[in-house]
Amino acid sequence: MQNHDDKQLQLSSKEALHLAKWDEVRLEELLASMHGSELGELLLACHKDSERQTLINHIPDELLGDALLELPEGMQEDLLAEFRADEVEDMVEHLDSDDAADILQAVDKEIADEVMDRLEPSERRELEPLMGHDEESAGGLMQAELFKVRDDWPVEKVLQVLRRFGKEIENLNYVYVVDDDDLLVGVLSLHALLFSEPEVIVHDLAQSDFPRALAGQDQEEVARIFDKYDVLALPVVDERGELVGRITADDVIDVIQEEATEDMYRLAALSDEDDLAEAVGVTARRRGIWLAVNLMTAIAASIVISQFEATIAQVVALAVLMPIVASMGGIAGTQTLTVIVRGIALGRVTFSNARRTLIKEVSVGMVSGVTFALVIGTIASLWFPELGIRLGWIIAAAMLINLFAAALAGAMIPLTLQRLKIDPALASGTILTTVTDVVGFFSFLGLATMFLI
Amino acid sequence: MQNHDDKQLQLSSKEALHLAKWDEVRLEELLASMHGSELGELLLACHKDSERQTLINHIPDELLGDALLELPEGMQEDLLAEFRADEVEDMVEHLDSDDAADILQAVDKEIADEVMDRLEPSERRELEPLMGHDEESAGGLMQAELFKVRDDWPVEKVLQVLRRFGKEIENLNYVYVVDDDDLLVGVLSLHALLFSEPEVIVHDLAQSDFPRALAGQDQEEVARIFDKYDVLALPVVDERGELVGRITADDVIDVIQEEATEDMYRLAALSDEDDLAEAVGVTARRRGIWLAVNLMTAIAASIVISQFEATIAQVVALAVLMPIVASMGGIAGTQTLTVIVRGIALGRVTFSNARRTLIKEVSVGMVSGVTFALVIGTIASLWFPELGIRLGWIIAAAMLINLFAAALAGAMIPLTLQRLKIDPALASGTILTTVTDVVGFFSFLGLATMFLI
Repeated sequence: MQNHDDKQLQLSSKEALHLAKWDEVRLEELLASMHGSELGELLLACHKDSERQTLINHIPDELLGDALLELPEGMQEDLLAEFRADEVEDMVEHLDSDDAADILQAVDKEIADEVMDRLEPSERRELEPLMGHDEESAGGLMQAELFKVRDDWPVEKVLQVLRRFGKEIENLNYVYVVDDDDLLVGVLSLHALLFSEPEVIVHDLAQSDFPRALAGQDQEEVARIFDKYDVLALPVVDERGELVGRITADDVIDVIQEEATEDMYRLAALSDEDDLAEAVGVTARRRGIWLAVNLMTAIAASIVISQFEATIAQVVALAVLMPIVASMGGIAGTQTLTVIVRGIALGRVTFSNARRTLIKEVSVGMVSGVTFALVIGTIASLWFPELGIRLGWIIAAAMLINLFAAALAGAMIPLTLQRLKIDPALASGTILTTVTDVVGFFSFLGLATMFLI
Repeated sequence: MQNHDDKQLQLSSKEALHLAKWDEVRLEELLASMHGSELGELLLACHKDSERQTLINHIPDELLGDALLELPEGMQEDLLAEFRADEVEDMVEHLDSDDAADILQAVDKEIADEVMDRLEPSERRELEPLMGHDEESAGGLMQAELFKVRDDWPVEKVLQVLRRFGKEIENLNYVYVVDDDDLLVGVLSLHALLFSEPEVIVHDLAQSDFPRALAGQDQEEVARIFDKYDVLALPVVDERGELVGRITADDVIDVIQEEATEDMYRLAALSDEDDLAEAVGVTARRRGIWLAVNLMTAIAASIVISQFEATIAQVVALAVLMPIVASMGGIAGTQTLTVIVRGIALGRVTFSNARRTLIKEVSVGMVSGVTFALVIGTIASLWFPELGIRLGWIIAAAMLINLFAAALAGAMIPLTLQRLKIDPALASGTILTTVTDVVGFFSFLGLATMFLI
């Protein structure tokens, strides 16, 4: 499932490190011919940071920044820690303002300040407004490179100015129209501009209802705006409505991948920093925290079981069957949990329809509860005929109770976390399985104690 | 966590349906003022298809297609089944070719053919090459609207032609340069064009190494190319290298969301058609299939336990502790599984580094195995002093074995499925927990039988 275009990436990390020893000239011309993201993959493929440092010394300044930005944050910061201010500066000068800001926020404060002082005033003025925004907000994503014009200009003048100053702006698709207070009036697509009469005033051409992002808005919401309106770039305004930057669709693609990974990881009791390229020790520590949490919840379930030791001693069949009730609850609950966590992330589960979603999930839980109660009841009675049909009724009831609890918990946990402004994916899975284990064991063994012996 | 821009969506489905009864004129002017995706949300918010039909009858043709394309496939097809060919035609005429093709592939074959016959030859010629591609391939994503020019044209001529014919092409950012066999020579950004001298030949301006997608390439790979090269649109070529279409970043954003949802759902034993808006019965049936699979695997685990009934009858403490071993294995395995499934989806786990990934995950498994073996061993010995330290050693060994098995299975299952060209996320979770349950119960109860009694 490798990219077809990976064929372009001929150079393996082994070969690169070998060349670093024997033919630096060749290595540097190879590296110079590669794309930033390919260099990123190359660095990622190295086994040690020391190896990465070796290659970094041969990557040309104009590609280095893009390469480093491809790396997971932890690794990025470790490598950047080795850089001198002038090296960071050389790198930053070749980056778009949004990427430059990311690098400057990844290096030590002192280095960053030193770099800012060294930069030309024009570049500094461009970067300053981008710094200090939450990295996961629209402000943190936006870049300063954009083309804005006064709303009282004619198309002709816009094109002149565009020809003069627009050149170094990448992916220039839209012209942003502002009034004399710099407030965003509307957006004008580059080709709409091309097809307009020279004397028309842009104010009349600009699309005033074009979607916009607020600098403080969460990146997940920004992604939803792109998803919803199918635009290629979004203007970013401050609370006053002043145009402060723009976000392009390619940056949002990264955000969406990031957010999806984050949710998947959290649902699986993983830290979102968990990374394939990390050392075994680091990964083991990260995951250990969550395993420890799970150990405690598993022990909680065992304590429930221990309350019924006497019952189990009399009817060992209970020990054989009890994991089935717990396991079914766990799966059914995870199904509900996942649908709702994803629904929240995609903006499909909102405050307005939360109640309806809850009702639906619980109804589904009841339907499968009844179904699988009958199935497992029958199986149990046939499996342990000596205990008669009564065992069947008991496990059926326990299954029904647990699948109901599973649906309720699977829906309530993420909805509650969201209302508490906590990431609905965070720890949801662990809380859920605790509920389904405890309820499963307690209902099954409890009913057995009452009615079987 | 609602979009800020949801404020724009004033009209609730209730209100809309009420207006449909009492003030159709008002309803229609409200609907006409909304965005396609907002209309989609409105339809989604209805409780029954009959209600959706009512609103659809008031949505203007030029918005209807966009609205329907926002709906989950199942619902989309149910609603489209009610359309006459002429209605489909009115809708299709207002859509971009890629969306039009999606609609035509969602309606019955006969209707689609009838619509194709009714369309103007020019539109039909545009649509035909888009049909019949796998929906999840580059060919299925691409649109025919693009601006291509001969490589021997001067900039001046390109701009003239662009002004004449480019007008109706949305998001026109790149000009595609082809030779006289229509083979893609290179790509030229619209603003690079603006900043070039009128007499320059575009062949010399075009970026020949611009990334491209193959019509047959999977949409997940297409998404990775966008992710990797940060482009806003990608040319699509056939195996001959002939330019057949283009894909814009906004379409890819949808794809990425789709793929992420699919993987999350499959990891959680959900059908990827599972949808919030579905009727309870439908959802219960979809999920029931996976619950049934899980029931069988849970029973398999119970059969393992039943082999040790005699042991449990003597030492009930084993029944109390055994779920801990199984549960820890399940969580640890899921951690590994998720990291690898996601790594494959993002193109970070490939054939070339699969072995290294496997080794790392197993090492992590060993580290946490040893750690939690010691922890649980101590806890068990303290919890059941009457059974002495021996119980501690037994559960410690079982924990070690199961966390090792969990890492091995968590890594091997997706890597094997991928090699077999099966979606690595599919059923992985169920297989994994079967392994961890069986190994967990068997090792713990087996060791107890051998050494405890």
